[in-house]
Amino acid sequence: MILNHINDIASICAGHGIKTAVISPGSRSAPITLAFNQYPDIEVKMVADERSAAFIAIGIAQQQKQPVVLVCTSGSAVYNYAPAVAEAYYQEVPLLILSADRPPEWTNQYDGQTIQQAGIFGNHVKKSFQFPVEGIHKDDVWYANRVTNEAIISAKKSPKGPVHINVPLREPFYPSEDESISFNPNTRIIHSPQVSPGLTEETWASFASVWEKTTKRLVVVGQLEADGALTQVLEEFSKDKDTLVINDVTGNQHTLGGVIQHQDAFLLPDQSDVLSKLTPELLITIGKSLISKNLKLYFRKNPPKHHWHIHESDQVNDTLQHVTNVISTSPNYFIHELNNRTKSRTSKIFNSAWSTIESRAAESRRSFLENCEFGEFQAINLCVNVLPNHGQLHLANSMSVRYANLLGMSKNVKVFANRGTSGIDGSNGTAVGAAIAQQELVTLITGDMAFLYDRNAFWHSERIKNMRIIVLNNSGGGIFRMIKGPRDQKDYEKLFQTDQPLTAKHTALDFGFDYFDCDNRNDLEEHLKDFYSPSDRPKILEVFSDSKKNTEVFEAFKKLFVD
Amino acid sequence: MILNHINDIASICAGHGIKTAVISPGSRSAPITLAFNQYPDIEVKMVADERSAAFIAIGIAQQQKQPVVLVCTSGSAVYNYAPAVAEAYYQEVPLLILSADRPPEWTNQYDGQTIQQAGIFGNHVKKSFQFPVEGIHKDDVWYANRVTNEAIISAKKSPKGPVHINVPLREPFYPSEDESISFNPNTRIIHSPQVSPGLTEETWASFASVWEKTTKRLVVVGQLEADGALTQVLEEFSKDKDTLVINDVTGNQHTLGGVIQHQDAFLLPDQSDVLSKLTPELLITIGKSLISKNLKLYFRKNPPKHHWHIHESDQVNDTLQHVTNVISTSPNYFIHELNNRTKSRTSKIFNSAWSTIESRAAESRRSFLENCEFGEFQAINLCVNVLPNHGQLHLANSMSVRYANLLGMSKNVKVFANRGTSGIDGSNGTAVGAAIAQQELVTLITGDMAFLYDRNAFWHSERIKNMRIIVLNNSGGGIFRMIKGPRDQKDYEKLFQTDQPLTAKHTALDFGFDYFDCDNRNDLEEHLKDFYSPSDRPKILEVFSDSKKNTEVFEAFKKLFVD
Repeated sequence: MILNHINDIASICAGHGIKTAVISPGSRSAPITLAFNQYPDIEVKMVADERSAAFIAIGIAQQQKQPVVLVCTSGSAVYNYAPAVAEAYYQEVPLLILSADRPPEWTNQYDGQTIQQAGIFGNHVKKSFQFPVEGIHKDDVWYANRVTNEAIISAKKSPKGPVHINVPLREPFYPSEDESISFNPNTRIIHSPQVSPGLTEETWASFASVWEKTTKRLVVVGQLEADGALTQVLEEFSKDKDTLVINDVTGNQHTLGGVIQHQDAFLLPDQSDVLSKLTPELLITIGKSLISKNLKLYFRKNPPKHHWHIHESDQVNDTLQHVTNVISTSPNYFIHELNNRTKSRTSKIFNSAWSTIESRAAESRRSFLENCEFGEFQAINLCVNVLPNHGQLHLANSMSVRYANLLGMSKNVKVFANRGTSGIDGSNGTAVGAAIAQQELVTLITGDMAFLYDRNAFWHSERIKNMRIIVLNNSGGGIFRMIKGPRDQKDYEKLFQTDQPLTAKHTALDFGFDYFDCDNRNDLEEHLKDFYSPSDRPKILEVFSDSKKNTEVFEAFKKLFVD
Repeated sequence: MILNHINDIASICAGHGIKTAVISPGSRSAPITLAFNQYPDIEVKMVADERSAAFIAIGIAQQQKQPVVLVCTSGSAVYNYAPAVAEAYYQEVPLLILSADRPPEWTNQYDGQTIQQAGIFGNHVKKSFQFPVEGIHKDDVWYANRVTNEAIISAKKSPKGPVHINVPLREPFYPSEDESISFNPNTRIIHSPQVSPGLTEETWASFASVWEKTTKRLVVVGQLEADGALTQVLEEFSKDKDTLVINDVTGNQHTLGGVIQHQDAFLLPDQSDVLSKLTPELLITIGKSLISKNLKLYFRKNPPKHHWHIHESDQVNDTLQHVTNVISTSPNYFIHELNNRTKSRTSKIFNSAWSTIESRAAESRRSFLENCEFGEFQAINLCVNVLPNHGQLHLANSMSVRYANLLGMSKNVKVFANRGTSGIDGSNGTAVGAAIAQQELVTLITGDMAFLYDRNAFWHSERIKNMRIIVLNNSGGGIFRMIKGPRDQKDYEKLFQTDQPLTAKHTALDFGFDYFDCDNRNDLEEHLKDFYSPSDRPKILEVFSDSKKNTEVFEAFKKLFVD
């Protein structure tokens, strides 16, 4: 068994700084698995369910800021990666997917675990490669080396994302007793330094000219990984130019002075005309997706004269429908340079309109949540209020991330959410990946549906004692009751409510997690006193609430902002 | 909200005989969900986890012998169907996948739950369509109607399989209070009667001529749905022409007189030369995949002079590597006509060689299992021996289906297994689908890995009291210890064993199933006395065994057949 071209994959990955491979058990993938496991500088994590494995890989990649390798066997195993691959593509998280495959001659021959794997992820990977079947001919050896290098270089280059190498393998899959896996210390690593696209002086001059001609200006931040350098650049810019920043909760700019966070509460669609005075002349957006539907609707209806979107990609992201410039560079560079190349500060009247509505909204929200009936909205507020600083907060899709975005973030924590595709499928997994990859406290706030959907994310032997999970259990599908359309349907209970009776208790028992539950404010506050403190085991705190009452609370909350 | 083109989908489905839609909750998909739910002749089953939902749909489609509709919302939800779509494609199970989508202008705009859904399943669906965004222009109405008809016609035509219609939808998704969903009684149904491809007289003459020139003949049956008419045709043919039939356990021909079932035990690769006297001159294969690796290796090494493969498809299935004729017609027609058009019976000496080795193998297996140490092999034998007739046996991949294939089947039950892709991902789901769709007893034999992988197949409110689940728990990954390669690796425990500590107990508690467990023969036999009797709840019987001992038993078993 001479599989140097397979062993070289591990060497090349390590040469590019990859630290972790998440592997699901399989026989055809054994040569890849053995190579990664025996390579000294790469840690191997075994996860049985490929769907969860791929979300865990996302979680690890977010922490390491490096691609994470995924290895699975041939057949439908590969397809179980698909939901996470789409999430990684849109959230721009680097992954290197290595799928073992039968050689092409065995496809469509009714042989076991054989599907059409080449190019299987379509446009949801940045690049897709087919490895040579053998690594004997020198051109195959060269090809295998180049493909592996190119895949990793592509995964790391902005916009980052998943890449796929399909690896056909013939038997034997295992070295015999007298063989041992060896790594070539001279395996070629093709280096490709990160480049930062800069703008020409002419372009800067034209941007500076637009800046000076406007007085009402605003920065909006969509999903962005926490980045201290960017926050500092924004802080300086915001002060120097007296320009307000609106932060989506996943934008990770909540520690900025004067940051606007309650936009989703007060930019109500039916108030859009009244609020048109808030429309900037120049809007600068950075980051990826925005949670706040109200914010999006507002800017679609009230377009700024100039809308610059800063994102290192050739894609025209026009989600607000009036973008005038897509600027393919890094926000750090752009904002820093813009600050240096411009003089005039933003209109005080304009800023004051925003600050006033924001501080009123913050106060309304505070007093509302203090006095409202107990339910998931109040619960998430209490849980976030006592969150320790310097940890991480992972928010599941559906209501958890929306509540958090309505609350704004008062703690110095890094915020994560799978907003690439906004599925409920892998939020346990990405949080578990974060807990595996580093020591900080990882708090996941999730609903019963998202929690149960991805239970298999806990099915492995990695230690995640730094994990805290808050499950907002409203017996399923509460989000649909929040929306007028579905809740008015006569078949609501059957079609939208889901109405699932499960709790997190047996899952906690299965995996040996501490488990606490409550259904009222006093008990919740009691549990929270110790919940975040260090422990030898992960902890789950399940908060039960009534879906109908939650809806009433939410409706009452929204009414606060109607004039 | 005028969505007649959406409501028409339900009418057209019903017009084509579709009975069931498996739906996962979502908002964008609401117009499709509401249409199916309100259509009087279609039953709606709600399943939260899309991955399991799609496998459940396969299970229902197998029972109803009709396409089953799958409905999900946009985004990664669709991708969670992918593993089951590949399984349905290779197992040739008809599914109609309706994925709600944003209209195309919203793709790649960082808007929630939006991925590139058009054509997302690649070559793993028979056809893939993009629905019109609106159903207002008369050409769009015509297009929507034609596409729906064509998709269903394609799904039903041999080889059957999954088809995908991607359905873009704009808001509003819900009818207002004064609107009601109505169905057009005159929606066009395009009929397309099933045709049976026949052969010309000339072709028959040439086949009959080959038949008469050979004396050693054999029929091998790969995976086929149970079909009384085919079994009868095979019974007549087998008697008239004195021709033996080898049945893979998923071939569902185990009730045939004189059927060969122990091929996987006695056709050992290192005995292949000794056994070359068993090679037929004419081999006729029907059905899809074959479980027995030994059978495949045997025929690859000992090719028959003529190999006719009968399968209604234009694919060249050459898994035995020496096929001479691919005959795209139904096995029922072919075998029946062949019987009518030929005279000479098979060589008695040849048949006797097969019958002798088969009956010896059967006897060796019987006495071995009677006396061997308790473990999963003996357990599965005991469980199958007392299986009631006229029910169904579903076999999970990995060891369950292999053990069953080694045992042969002594009961008059229909056998199912996901051998399209042979993944471990959805065996709970297909069995649950079978239990939902009909009243017969459905017994699933599975391992701990496959059982836990697809736990979410039980996460719904359908009644499946006719379900019995036998979990062979060897703490994970026992299959890899059965293979010499992995078990000799120094990192075996970490990389292949999985070594998972979970049992089925908490899953049983979660879903309110009866639960029994045992780890020895006496207790197992005691539990089996009542296990298959009617009950108000599903039952799980978990049989614990030691992976190392199982391997020793299996190795000893294989040695029985070495000369």
